[in-house]
Amino acid sequence: MESRNIRLAVIPGDGIGTEVVAEGLKVLEAVGTKIEPTHYDLGAARYHRTGETLPDPVLQELRGYDAILLGAVGDPSVPPGILERDLLLRLRFEFDHYVNLRPVKLFPGVETPLADTAAEDIDMIVVREGTEGLYAGTGGAMRRGTPHEIATQESLNTAYGVERVVRYAFDKAQSRPRKKLTLVHKTNVLTFAGDLWQRTVNRVAEEYPEVTTDYCHIDAASMFFVTQPGRFDVVVTDNLFGDIITDLGAAIAGGIGLAASGNINPEGTAPSMFEPVHGSAPDIAGQGKADPTATILSVAMLLDHLGLRAEAAKVEQAVADDIVERLAGWTGRTTSQIGDDITARVSG
Amino acid sequence: MESRNIRLAVIPGDGIGTEVVAEGLKVLEAVGTKIEPTHYDLGAARYHRTGETLPDPVLQELRGYDAILLGAVGDPSVPPGILERDLLLRLRFEFDHYVNLRPVKLFPGVETPLADTAAEDIDMIVVREGTEGLYAGTGGAMRRGTPHEIATQESLNTAYGVERVVRYAFDKAQSRPRKKLTLVHKTNVLTFAGDLWQRTVNRVAEEYPEVTTDYCHIDAASMFFVTQPGRFDVVVTDNLFGDIITDLGAAIAGGIGLAASGNINPEGTAPSMFEPVHGSAPDIAGQGKADPTATILSVAMLLDHLGLRAEAAKVEQAVADDIVERLAGWTGRTTSQIGDDITARVSG
Ligand SMILES: CC(C)[C@H](C(=O)O)[C@@H](O)C(=O)O
Ligand SMILES: CC(C)[C@H](C(=O)O)[C@@H](O)C(=O)O
Repeated sequence: MESRNIRLAVIPGDGIGTEVVAEGLKVLEAVGTKIEPTHYDLGAARYHRTGETLPDPVLQELRGYDAILLGAVGDPSVPPGILERDLLLRLRFEFDHYVNLRPVKLFPGVETPLADTAAEDIDMIVVREGTEGLYAGTGGAMRRGTPHEIATQESLNTAYGVERVVRYAFDKAQSRPRKKLTLVHKTNVLTFAGDLWQRTVNRVAEEYPEVTTDYCHIDAASMFFVTQPGRFDVVVTDNLFGDIITDLGAAIAGGIGLAASGNINPEGTAPSMFEPVHGSAPDIAGQGKADPTATILSVAMLLDHLGLRAEAAKVEQAVADDIVERLAGWTGRTTSQIGDDITARVSG
Repeated sequence: MESRNIRLAVIPGDGIGTEVVAEGLKVLEAVGTKIEPTHYDLGAARYHRTGETLPDPVLQELRGYDAILLGAVGDPSVPPGILERDLLLRLRFEFDHYVNLRPVKLFPGVETPLADTAAEDIDMIVVREGTEGLYAGTGGAMRRGTPHEIATQESLNTAYGVERVVRYAFDKAQSRPRKKLTLVHKTNVLTFAGDLWQRTVNRVAEEYPEVTTDYCHIDAASMFFVTQPGRFDVVVTDNLFGDIITDLGAAIAGGIGLAASGNINPEGTAPSMFEPVHGSAPDIAGQGKADPTATILSVAMLLDHLGLRAEAAKVEQAVADDIVERLAGWTGRTTSQIGDDITARVSG
């Protein structure tokens, strides 16, 4: 990898996506990597112009990259679900991003909305399944628009799909000092899927005698994220529970402006994709108000994934240092000022 | 109703259920109602003794009561889902408790885990659908225990089921000073069910011109519960999202020890059922450590539901006053001491 240029596909997307991705790329250049970015204009604008969300030839082209950096997708001018399903989720599914990796970590100096909580109390990583469950998109409606309408959604869970993400989570737990893995589900109500998840965790656990395993219902977990976040180290959970709990995680760890994520294909059969957890935030788009930090931290995850560990660490450190300045009262910066400040640190 | 005795079925259930229900009944007696309680031993003990969860003749008998008070259901000695599905959820379904009413209200003096949050910032009511969605229990497993296992869960949503709970929520919103209703769902992924919920809210909204309506994805809502709880007044949501968000609501409003709920059959075709949001907490059962306040507040909801408004208000006020004493450092009381103290206030 180190000898040739890394090929990066960039999908800024909608709303603040464009603004934050620009800052991510600044930092990426400054950190001294041989990365060649190519931009793709996918999102609401293209959908309105051509009716396309993700044309097949573009999907094929994207497959050839080493990684993808995505800003955000979604716009109120497009009916709910179209860009999400046909662009964002399609990329996750087609490129088999079965691990959606979302660190929930409170940087020193960041304000959390929780009282009496120190940075060391919030340091976990959520391993969210990315290709199954209720995101499969199966379901339908009958007698739509009548008083007799029925609408269904189906959660599809396979031994194959659950086992691979559970193994990934155990590996992660094994590599961390606390070595603790918590399954979050709702086994008392979703008995069929819950039984598959719980049996899989029990079975794989036998291969990881050093890892302590634990179980928590999604409702209780939501409570504990607020009252005892320190009880979590690695959390493994399904696609929908992971979606909910990582936004909650972002909230407790100082807000959606800092939450990074990686949609990982661990075997490398297709490019992995890195994106901030936040959405396109159309209400503040184009005003320089968005915090690019989540994207810059996603860039660090991208570098780490590509094996550029030193560069990744440098970006993370630059963010940590920048955050300490914020604590000292340095607020009111625009999107690009924050990007410039972090860029200066990585090149310095 | 006021002329004859009110017939109350009491299901203490498992774990701390017995302890907290005893305190609820103390308060009920002291408040001066003509309520006749009859106890039913349903739960883990009966299941182990006789294999029964909710025998049909018992279900029929329960149907004849004016209301039900339930403690908690669930024990680690019973496989997940059995007592939940065959006892608790069966009662909700058979008695058509389509409104699961869960106030999220911070009493003055209660400590919230959120920093910089005042009591007036947290005052909402969650109207959770109680009979449909993923709780329908449909789904299954194929090739169970093999590497080719598939497990499914189905979310069933009907126009009939969604409209009636949405109407209830609009009525609630109309009766409150802020008159604001927020639909919480995940319309961008659960497109079929989400479309039914959103269309229903839009249609019913036309009949309530004074109510402001709003929409929030479940992931964003989880974040806002922590960062801006004040943006919610009445929340209407499906069964599973309601389950998650009300535990989170309990957490921000001072903990599960204070969260009350009513499983309501608004037409009165079967008895409504009142229960604390917390579970059976087997780890602290029998030690006098459980806080009975959530059950006592559920008793207040029960009184209110039966039209005994003055008595309900008296119980609520007694709890509010008791909580102020806690603030003054009055801690370390046992379950029955808290019950006695609140009882003394309502009879005094
Ligand atoms: C935009 C939406 C489809 C997406 C999801 O639900 O996965 C987002 O909320 C996320 O968490 O990445
Ligand atoms: C015990 C369980 C089945 C129940 C639910 O999921 O509804 C509980 O969590 C609740 O919120 O009342």
